[in-house]
Amino acid sequence: MCELLAMSANVPTDIVFSFTGLAERGGVTGPHVDGWGITFYEGKGSRTFKDSKPSSDSHVAHLIKSYPIKSEIVVSHIRQANRGEVCLENTHPFTRELWGRYWTYAHNGQLSDYETLFNTKHFQAVGDTDSEMAFCWIMDRVVEQFGLQQPQDMKPVFTFIASLADKIKQLGVFNMLLTDGVDLMIYCSNNLCHITRRAPFGKAKLIDTDVVIDFQKETTPDDVVTVIATRPLTNNEQWHVLAPGDWKIFRKGELILSR
Amino acid sequence: MCELLAMSANVPTDIVFSFTGLAERGGVTGPHVDGWGITFYEGKGSRTFKDSKPSSDSHVAHLIKSYPIKSEIVVSHIRQANRGEVCLENTHPFTRELWGRYWTYAHNGQLSDYETLFNTKHFQAVGDTDSEMAFCWIMDRVVEQFGLQQPQDMKPVFTFIASLADKIKQLGVFNMLLTDGVDLMIYCSNNLCHITRRAPFGKAKLIDTDVVIDFQKETTPDDVVTVIATRPLTNNEQWHVLAPGDWKIFRKGELILSR
Repeated sequence: MCELLAMSANVPTDIVFSFTGLAERGGVTGPHVDGWGITFYEGKGSRTFKDSKPSSDSHVAHLIKSYPIKSEIVVSHIRQANRGEVCLENTHPFTRELWGRYWTYAHNGQLSDYETLFNTKHFQAVGDTDSEMAFCWIMDRVVEQFGLQQPQDMKPVFTFIASLADKIKQLGVFNMLLTDGVDLMIYCSNNLCHITRRAPFGKAKLIDTDVVIDFQKETTPDDVVTVIATRPLTNNEQWHVLAPGDWKIFRKGELILSR
Repeated sequence: MCELLAMSANVPTDIVFSFTGLAERGGVTGPHVDGWGITFYEGKGSRTFKDSKPSSDSHVAHLIKSYPIKSEIVVSHIRQANRGEVCLENTHPFTRELWGRYWTYAHNGQLSDYETLFNTKHFQAVGDTDSEMAFCWIMDRVVEQFGLQQPQDMKPVFTFIASLADKIKQLGVFNMLLTDGVDLMIYCSNNLCHITRRAPFGKAKLIDTDVVIDFQKETTPDDVVTVIATRPLTNNEQWHVLAPGDWKIFRKGELILSR
């Protein structure tokens, strides 16, 4: 199994605090030592830092913890390999371009008997993980359903993707993060939770390492920041736990669509 | 104008020496202060570090200079903006997946009257540079010509891409780096040169900053490493300068096809 982390915010926000907690699970407080990755969106652009080394022992992860990159959407993943060997092409998040937007995806879980389902045309996996194949299958089905020009209304697209995720969930555990750089979709198979922080901001304390942050000093009163994680990252705040089959869409930190 | 840097090698090789010279041109010895990026291939996987800050003053560039990432193919670019504003989505290199491979591209030059030519279907630009539009047009034409399944022989694909580059060159200056993770293609419009280093290795001295390297200490006798740059990076070695319209394909450091 792996650990997921994501953020949707209405102002460019750094995720150093949450990533510091997550990175500990990559070799210190957790067994997820088979690489990690994090994607930051800045406007329509995105950049992904990844490493096939454990996040607790990675030069690049050290950079992310020490150099605050301000972003409106973040998708991150630390890996404990089950399908596919430990190498860069099997390291999440995965990105593809569709409709002039970068789509970024990460998956926690394990699937069985997926080879026949995930036969794709427009998007093909580079590595050999079930995760990347599921992503390419989702993107392929979206192109088949909606064509190569972006529809005006994106809500039917995400509702359709949720119906695809329902099918994938029948093959195993499928907790998913997916964004097109505007909306952040989360889909729960068994482990996913979120918290939305807004004024009045308080202090938060990480579970995995001895770090406390006072968000009031880091924010303005209008900031809305939603953080998603496999398990709660702090132990003095109320995290909302999703039920199996639940999915939600966040835009600029606010929930805009859900089941 | 911008500066390009690329490498093709038969063993995983770090590019710290050459990148150190290039990065100086991003704000110290050169005027290319509008961001930079570098893509490393490790097996079939790739990772791109980019920043819209000048390379001479970037935390991420400092990481690249201090942390040797060993790679068989590298594509790098530092930018002096002419078309498109300074932001992450306009920062090279650009990557798209086709045929289960990551294709990475960087361009030096400036094009005119390109809007009608670069009308694309399968691949769409995320940013608004002439460079990314040209890349998406090339990839789109490759799909139209060869379909969605990879051909056995890639030489006709690169020869076809060279014919597309000839057309783009009619719109302005078009020096290009392009790789599918196996082959590295370089196309010269006006400024591009390369050097192939192999045993017996010697010392090299950077032009842009006071650094000398003794490659004999860094290599084994079987290593073959080709470096491509807009202008020579060292002043005590013989660089080969390409003529306008010249293109070359390198695989594992060796020249395998050229015009």
